[in-house]
Amino acid sequence: MTTDYTSHDTICAPSSPPGTGAVALIRVSGSDAIKIASKIFRPLKKGKSINSFRPQRIYRGQILDSGKAIDEVLVWVFKSPNSYTGENIVEISCHGSEYIQQSIMELLSKKGARVARPGEFTLRAFLNGKMDLSQAEAVADLVASASEVSHRLAYKQMRGHFSWRIEELRRQLVEFASLIELELDFSEEDLKFASREKLIKLLNKIEKELTILIDSFSVGNVLKTGVPVAIIGKPNVGKSTLLNAILNEEKAIVSETPGTTRDAIEDTIIIDGIGFRFIDTAGLRDSDDTIENMGVEKTYQKINQASIILYMFDASETAIEEINETVEQFMQVIDDKSKKMILIANKTDLLMEIPKNFRNLVDLETIFVSAKRKTNINLITDSLVQAFKKELPSKEDVIVSNTRHHQALKETRDIIKNLQKGIDEKLSGDLLSTDLRTALYHLGTITGEITSEEILDNIFGKFCIGK
Amino acid sequence: MTTDYTSHDTICAPSSPPGTGAVALIRVSGSDAIKIASKIFRPLKKGKSINSFRPQRIYRGQILDSGKAIDEVLVWVFKSPNSYTGENIVEISCHGSEYIQQSIMELLSKKGARVARPGEFTLRAFLNGKMDLSQAEAVADLVASASEVSHRLAYKQMRGHFSWRIEELRRQLVEFASLIELELDFSEEDLKFASREKLIKLLNKIEKELTILIDSFSVGNVLKTGVPVAIIGKPNVGKSTLLNAILNEEKAIVSETPGTTRDAIEDTIIIDGIGFRFIDTAGLRDSDDTIENMGVEKTYQKINQASIILYMFDASETAIEEINETVEQFMQVIDDKSKKMILIANKTDLLMEIPKNFRNLVDLETIFVSAKRKTNINLITDSLVQAFKKELPSKEDVIVSNTRHHQALKETRDIIKNLQKGIDEKLSGDLLSTDLRTALYHLGTITGEITSEEILDNIFGKFCIGK
Repeated sequence: MTTDYTSHDTICAPSSPPGTGAVALIRVSGSDAIKIASKIFRPLKKGKSINSFRPQRIYRGQILDSGKAIDEVLVWVFKSPNSYTGENIVEISCHGSEYIQQSIMELLSKKGARVARPGEFTLRAFLNGKMDLSQAEAVADLVASASEVSHRLAYKQMRGHFSWRIEELRRQLVEFASLIELELDFSEEDLKFASREKLIKLLNKIEKELTILIDSFSVGNVLKTGVPVAIIGKPNVGKSTLLNAILNEEKAIVSETPGTTRDAIEDTIIIDGIGFRFIDTAGLRDSDDTIENMGVEKTYQKINQASIILYMFDASETAIEEINETVEQFMQVIDDKSKKMILIANKTDLLMEIPKNFRNLVDLETIFVSAKRKTNINLITDSLVQAFKKELPSKEDVIVSNTRHHQALKETRDIIKNLQKGIDEKLSGDLLSTDLRTALYHLGTITGEITSEEILDNIFGKFCIGK
Repeated sequence: MTTDYTSHDTICAPSSPPGTGAVALIRVSGSDAIKIASKIFRPLKKGKSINSFRPQRIYRGQILDSGKAIDEVLVWVFKSPNSYTGENIVEISCHGSEYIQQSIMELLSKKGARVARPGEFTLRAFLNGKMDLSQAEAVADLVASASEVSHRLAYKQMRGHFSWRIEELRRQLVEFASLIELELDFSEEDLKFASREKLIKLLNKIEKELTILIDSFSVGNVLKTGVPVAIIGKPNVGKSTLLNAILNEEKAIVSETPGTTRDAIEDTIIIDGIGFRFIDTAGLRDSDDTIENMGVEKTYQKINQASIILYMFDASETAIEEINETVEQFMQVIDDKSKKMILIANKTDLLMEIPKNFRNLVDLETIFVSAKRKTNINLITDSLVQAFKKELPSKEDVIVSNTRHHQALKETRDIIKNLQKGIDEKLSGDLLSTDLRTALYHLGTITGEITSEEILDNIFGKFCIGK
């Protein structure tokens, strides 16, 4: 289903969460919003119609179905262009029964409004210039964000912090274009030395800034969706018990990520404002945890996707001398050798004492716990937060958290590299200009100056209804 | 936990349904509502504070957490007494992520608001004289109502239709009291004949009106919770197939009633605005469906609770001549012999033709269907609606749907009967007055003129949060 992006027909949807509550909010937007809402609303004060309502004031009245009142509601109007969508908006605050919400939606449909598609209000806000595309995407991220950090990322992006950076890059590219135009003598084949120096300097600056943004994605992406943590270990070392102990310790928001399969259930918990996604892998084989025995490809993938690995072993059974070797073998399957790994020595409740020579024998950070007795679990959560806080850029930095933006930035940088090479190779201004236009195109897709129906359908189709 | 009914401390709660949505609404009510909300809100227009906001106007701004903006919101104020609770109310419309809702709730708590208990806003509305108790109860019913009919009952009660009837009864009782005071000569032992006639006439009128209200409960109660329909029959006659066919036919709201056990799952479907609860009974034994074999007590109870019984048999196997006898045997276990029963002759797909002599042989309304092929299912739903529509009082009638009200009305009528007897027996005015006060007491509990903390805790504890 494609959307008609020129249509100004009137759309309606409940904007409050689905289900039953004390009150619900139904939003109507479009050129006929006021006319349509008027047909089902009887104001408390006779003679007043929605048409005469002053914007942003709250009026009482009843919703009428064929002359019969079905609810007492509050109604207010936002007049175009001073509204979320930029169109006329009527909002109805009704009692929050599903029956009432459904009845009002049916009445609005009967009178000519269309049920809004997911994200259609925000799509209209974008199309009417109320926000750029990256801000619109941030609205969806904001609503979906479950941790302080992911919320902060989305909020900053919605407020335009990221857009300003893109705008600044764009400005520099345009500056570069004017330089070429000024300095290049198209009849000659070369640039003056001074000008070339200046152009190269500017391109390097742009490339550097792009790289900072592109590199921030590795952090931004996990902050947005939760830092993936894999708990690895042989069967019966206590992986599930540890996971439950961590969940208990934190008493934090716990959710199952929808769409994950039974063999890799992901629990997300928020620790110190950061979301951590615990990946329950199939685990290592009992016999021998070498590469050959690591089992399914899936486990291998999961481990490589994880930002942090908790390598767990049974401290009451494992010979300390062997741990380094086992870990080294394990590291051979890891693509990123610098990946953060913490050893978890479990079942300290079965130990007389923690072996004194341990720290001398094992190279990795090791935490001794009893998952069963819930001893020292806080050391693990502290370590997780510390491990990741080190990676966090400063609060002023703009962090890219959106895959689409990341892709566009990488494509822009590729072109910048072409341009650098082109200047080195003394390419003609014409060829440089073509590259420049392509770079501006890629940057433009981020903020939506350049867009296509496919991109828009893809972005707004993932929104919730009513936004 | 008991509520402090004199407190005016400031309470807050999300009023929109729980969960994630485009927007959520957080309500703050109490003497410090404006002061507390001011502390976490920065208006878009500098210099404006919530304190200076004009009531019922919508202002934009940000929610601040230690100076850091966490959301862009709309805020409006209702000033006491012109608000739902009668107190000052601030409402915050924020982005509908659970993180944001939770953060704003925490901020409000930190600044001195208390998280509201279920129904506490409506409790305050009652305590501050914004509505009487039966209207407050109707608010909860309205939010919970899932069908047109249950919604209409609740809406009328919320609008005060029931309260007016109670007020009218109260007025008549007070009139009776003045008559006694006027006509009774307390030094004599008797009433004048004319006065006694008048008093008896008035009592009869009151009793008649009470009886109409009391009798309406049998309908009101099932309309509110859904008309219970039991599908009865031997195993393999196709009960489950029929239920699924009905659910399919109607494409209506289907829900499992929470709290029902596996052996009696109740599906509620809305047909023509009326909710029907289909009770899946354990069924009759295969061998012989006499009383002895009807199985568990539970099935027996379920059948007696049902307003309508669908007695189902396999038309391809059952000898028509035996049906009357079987049904008669079955009727012996039914307490209410006048209970509506419809025979469902299933598996017509296995019949060559519907037996011609059937209508002459069987006394009950019989519908021939094929549950498997979904043939004639609409005849059953039509019949269900017709069966119950006959029972419906006219739309102008006030219907009692609340068990507490029903109980109070019955207690009032008992006293009225005492009074009738008392006048017959020429009791003294003193004794009559005592009865009168008791009758007024019971009527007063309905609208809440007379109440107790226990009653209030019981009523408002069942509300949803935020109402």
